[in-house]
Amino acid sequence: MPHTITFLPSNKTGLVASGIRISDAATTIDEFDLHLECGGKGTCQKCLVELVAGCVEINDRIFTVAKGAKPLRILSCQGRVCGEGVFSIVAGRAHEAATMSLGKDIAAIPPGLLPAAQDISPIVTTLRLCVDQPGAESNFPDSQRLETQVWSVVKSDAPVSIEPSALRSLPNALRADNGRITVRLRKDAEPMTVLSVDAGDKESPDVGIACDIGTTTVSVHCVDLSTGKVLATSSDYNGQIRRGADVISRIDYAKNDQRIGEMRTLVLATMNGLITTVLDNMHIPADEVFNVALAGNTTMIHLLLGLPSQAIRESPYVPVVNAPPVMRAWDVGLNVHPLAAVSFAPGVGSYVGGDITSGLLTTPMIHDKHAMSLFMDIGTNGEIAIGNAEFLMAAACSAGPAFEGSGIKCGMRAALGAIESFETDAQMNDVRYSVIGGGKPKGVCGSGLISLLGELYTKGLIDRAGKISASAPARSIAKIDGTTGLVLAQAADTLDGAAIVITEPDIDNLIRTKGAIYAACDLMLANIGLSVRDISHVYIAGGFGRFIDIDKAVRIGMLPDIPRDKFTYLGNSSLTGATLCLVSKARRKQLAALAKRVTYIDLSSDHRYMDAYVAALFLPHTDASRFPSVK
Amino acid sequence: MPHTITFLPSNKTGLVASGIRISDAATTIDEFDLHLECGGKGTCQKCLVELVAGCVEINDRIFTVAKGAKPLRILSCQGRVCGEGVFSIVAGRAHEAATMSLGKDIAAIPPGLLPAAQDISPIVTTLRLCVDQPGAESNFPDSQRLETQVWSVVKSDAPVSIEPSALRSLPNALRADNGRITVRLRKDAEPMTVLSVDAGDKESPDVGIACDIGTTTVSVHCVDLSTGKVLATSSDYNGQIRRGADVISRIDYAKNDQRIGEMRTLVLATMNGLITTVLDNMHIPADEVFNVALAGNTTMIHLLLGLPSQAIRESPYVPVVNAPPVMRAWDVGLNVHPLAAVSFAPGVGSYVGGDITSGLLTTPMIHDKHAMSLFMDIGTNGEIAIGNAEFLMAAACSAGPAFEGSGIKCGMRAALGAIESFETDAQMNDVRYSVIGGGKPKGVCGSGLISLLGELYTKGLIDRAGKISASAPARSIAKIDGTTGLVLAQAADTLDGAAIVITEPDIDNLIRTKGAIYAACDLMLANIGLSVRDISHVYIAGGFGRFIDIDKAVRIGMLPDIPRDKFTYLGNSSLTGATLCLVSKARRKQLAALAKRVTYIDLSSDHRYMDAYVAALFLPHTDASRFPSVK
Repeated sequence: MPHTITFLPSNKTGLVASGIRISDAATTIDEFDLHLECGGKGTCQKCLVELVAGCVEINDRIFTVAKGAKPLRILSCQGRVCGEGVFSIVAGRAHEAATMSLGKDIAAIPPGLLPAAQDISPIVTTLRLCVDQPGAESNFPDSQRLETQVWSVVKSDAPVSIEPSALRSLPNALRADNGRITVRLRKDAEPMTVLSVDAGDKESPDVGIACDIGTTTVSVHCVDLSTGKVLATSSDYNGQIRRGADVISRIDYAKNDQRIGEMRTLVLATMNGLITTVLDNMHIPADEVFNVALAGNTTMIHLLLGLPSQAIRESPYVPVVNAPPVMRAWDVGLNVHPLAAVSFAPGVGSYVGGDITSGLLTTPMIHDKHAMSLFMDIGTNGEIAIGNAEFLMAAACSAGPAFEGSGIKCGMRAALGAIESFETDAQMNDVRYSVIGGGKPKGVCGSGLISLLGELYTKGLIDRAGKISASAPARSIAKIDGTTGLVLAQAADTLDGAAIVITEPDIDNLIRTKGAIYAACDLMLANIGLSVRDISHVYIAGGFGRFIDIDKAVRIGMLPDIPRDKFTYLGNSSLTGATLCLVSKARRKQLAALAKRVTYIDLSSDHRYMDAYVAALFLPHTDASRFPSVK
Repeated sequence: MPHTITFLPSNKTGLVASGIRISDAATTIDEFDLHLECGGKGTCQKCLVELVAGCVEINDRIFTVAKGAKPLRILSCQGRVCGEGVFSIVAGRAHEAATMSLGKDIAAIPPGLLPAAQDISPIVTTLRLCVDQPGAESNFPDSQRLETQVWSVVKSDAPVSIEPSALRSLPNALRADNGRITVRLRKDAEPMTVLSVDAGDKESPDVGIACDIGTTTVSVHCVDLSTGKVLATSSDYNGQIRRGADVISRIDYAKNDQRIGEMRTLVLATMNGLITTVLDNMHIPADEVFNVALAGNTTMIHLLLGLPSQAIRESPYVPVVNAPPVMRAWDVGLNVHPLAAVSFAPGVGSYVGGDITSGLLTTPMIHDKHAMSLFMDIGTNGEIAIGNAEFLMAAACSAGPAFEGSGIKCGMRAALGAIESFETDAQMNDVRYSVIGGGKPKGVCGSGLISLLGELYTKGLIDRAGKISASAPARSIAKIDGTTGLVLAQAADTLDGAAIVITEPDIDNLIRTKGAIYAACDLMLANIGLSVRDISHVYIAGGFGRFIDIDKAVRIGMLPDIPRDKFTYLGNSSLTGATLCLVSKARRKQLAALAKRVTYIDLSSDHRYMDAYVAALFLPHTDASRFPSVK
């Protein structure tokens, strides 16, 4: 039997069946997706709503709130409709809009990484040809005259196959503009394949899409395939977040075919949204895009392709595939030309995926014949690689998405309105921050959280355990949902008109994240008998923002305490690596070889990991001698 | 404004809009497809209906028939609805059901043509593998463990790509039956591609489909891929017949995208109907079929693939493609596994297609280093090839579908109830015929028509011009639709209860067909300075039936007058050739090389052709010296 349910603050009302979850009712009636980061198990507490009036059923018990009485706070993933009800959504901020940058705002690919213009070699190349018109002396079929021209331009006489859809457009295209045509040719297989034929010399720029599929954040670059230059970039939260914050909860959720399909649809919606955003901004039709390069962790790639992912999280931790073959966009589900070539950065194993190999590809360490370097990719999972041109070893730890702004009340992606660095005095009289895009803040991104944690600890506002100090000024302390926090910006000073507060559970969360990363790093080095002092260089990848404050990151114990000039922040190196693979055949070959030589270490099966982790759950560490430069 | 229209004899009634063609109304209301062999131009006279009562509009004039008045005979392709009307369908017989044969009724592939069992090599092979279960020592991804097994079985380490749909089923299939799986592997390209993975050893026989797409008749073989044996066969009229009897009228009809789509749909309906018929009879699910080999003339292949075909019939007669690449069934539109490999017999040019190369492949002449032989494929188009292992030349003429039973009142395909041979005395007192399947006849197939024409001429019942002789017995003469004919079987003796009659226009039609073939043959020989006496052997292909009466075929002047033992009747050699290509890689290579060495001769541009044709419009020929053995 259906009941009338109303959601506040939107005041939207609708009829839903008895027994459905309140979170699902919110999606149906309010088009509001409550992010079920735990996959709806009731553990992440991210989907809180208040029952303002009416009733709700939780675990077979009925709870009722009379009109005007005190609202009842419940988890919408646990409550079910059992009668009329008015619910107020109190969970987190609404989903931020995707970020989109054009022109000079784009982080350029570092010089030296891109191939020279003449070496640019995407999988699908654009050929502008002039094919002879048929005549009594040259009455070969259209396909054969095309083939002859292709051979002369690509300087090969390897067999050429023409896709049926291209064959269908061939005769009219050949006759529309005196034989001038634009052809897309895929050359990575034999036979070479003509994917499309259009009349005339197409004027529009030839672009490709590079995409990093993160557990929390998905980012795309729209790349000029004649120069390798990034023309536009866009990023957004991965739509799968509502079904789990980390890879384990997503794998658990995707336990049957229907849910595998749902997860696939969710991430495709995010990816296609981003692709459409960048292409629309460049005024480029989707079906003129024939090259896509993807990088992502092993679980993200499985969920994107609709592959069963259970075996990834069960011993012996076997993925379906580490290095997916080049696929057609239609098979993947991407909104570009259906026959576009979609390539995947190859992974190493269940927990070291193509995002890591792709990131490593952008570092000098893989070419260094002598010194050992560290590579750390801090995302929802943290991955560490150590090695050089001869040797490469990698491991993963579950860091959590705190530095991507997820799971932190005031957290957000590095987007407009994000605090990206933070300074204060010990009494919080003189609080200063810089905000992406200038103007008022609405949250804090990864680089801001590192800066904030370092500053609060350095100025004595929080103690080594992350608790707010007794010395913190009372006017800066706020109570939120039964927790204590420090007010970073007053309601009047923010974009949303709500104070920006960092709570003790948030700080705890950040300390767990940095502790997991440090412990993994520590154990990796121990495994090969090295100390941090043996490390020549540390490359840091992650979605913190435009930069990170290395000194603060050392001070909170996230990074090892070595000279600061040994660190290089790479930003989203997975996306950079995907961009290189998009435009360069040499890079694709290099990446395939790189993935094969990485040795995977399973830290989770090492009993010492938990000890190292617990020891790192202080600021900077329980063993202060490891951080001689800190105080 | 819609009007109520009724069709007889079905008595079906429906509402149709004013202005639509009566032929279209018949399709809508009566599900009766009137065969518009001329493409609806009003020239083929095949779509006759009678207006029994009501009105019809023809060329802006309204014709009315009062109830009980004499019905008005009209062409349904020319008449349009302008008010209420009752129409009686008088055109031709209803469409014959598809023929279907199983077991010993099937014409076997001649011995010596099929490869030995160990040399059978379809494009997609079935591998039955046992893949190691993952363990701590072998925790490679599922795809990698599969790849290793494939390599060991196919004895190659060429790259292997796995189709996305196969990847999706891989993990569950590997774990369902202790690693036992059935894999379909396509090996004709690099990388090799895994098309499907199923758990267990599939028990069902591995079959493929060979298909000859004729202008008039489409025939399929269901072939056991372990032996090359034909398990079932089925044939039917090509559904495109209703849009034109020959390739020229079909090309004319398919002049825009919508009609190209319609023609594609029509032939696909025929092909898929036949494929379903044979597979259902064998109890084989469609998605277990991974190999299809097609042969057809250039126009049929263009229409099947939805390719614009106009350029085929306009100078310089250039097809879109002579040798289509191997395609996926999904791209072609066939109801087998969507990723099945569909190969095409390569053609030579606009009027010598893959049906001819495929047929030549079945003859010994292509291996003969010394003697010259003739190959004649008598279908809706007649094609002649002459040559040997060193030299091959081919030409085409528009013969018309008379010998396939189309365009002849009493004509039918070689199916149950067809008269396949005919004997009579000069007074038609003692008429004998043999009927396919025994029992009463309902029409005459190609072999029967040759036999009939030869017998009527030899016994003096028709004269050299094909007119019924004054000596023909009056009781055997019938008047039909203003024409004169000879009754072959009385109404009481036939399956349909309607007399079987051959009319003078039918005889005329048969003479034109045999004349076109003979003239083409004559001119081909003249072109290379040979006479019929230089020919070592003549191979005759076509859909006449199970055999033809060679002596009668010479007597009517269809075949040259040389010793009868020099002739071999091959039946549907295009289908036989497609079957060989289905099962043998060596045959596919041989065919590709063969197609490249055939020289095409355009007879239509040779002014001598019309002279030769006119000279052949007598029985057996105007120049009796060419047929010394006839009387």
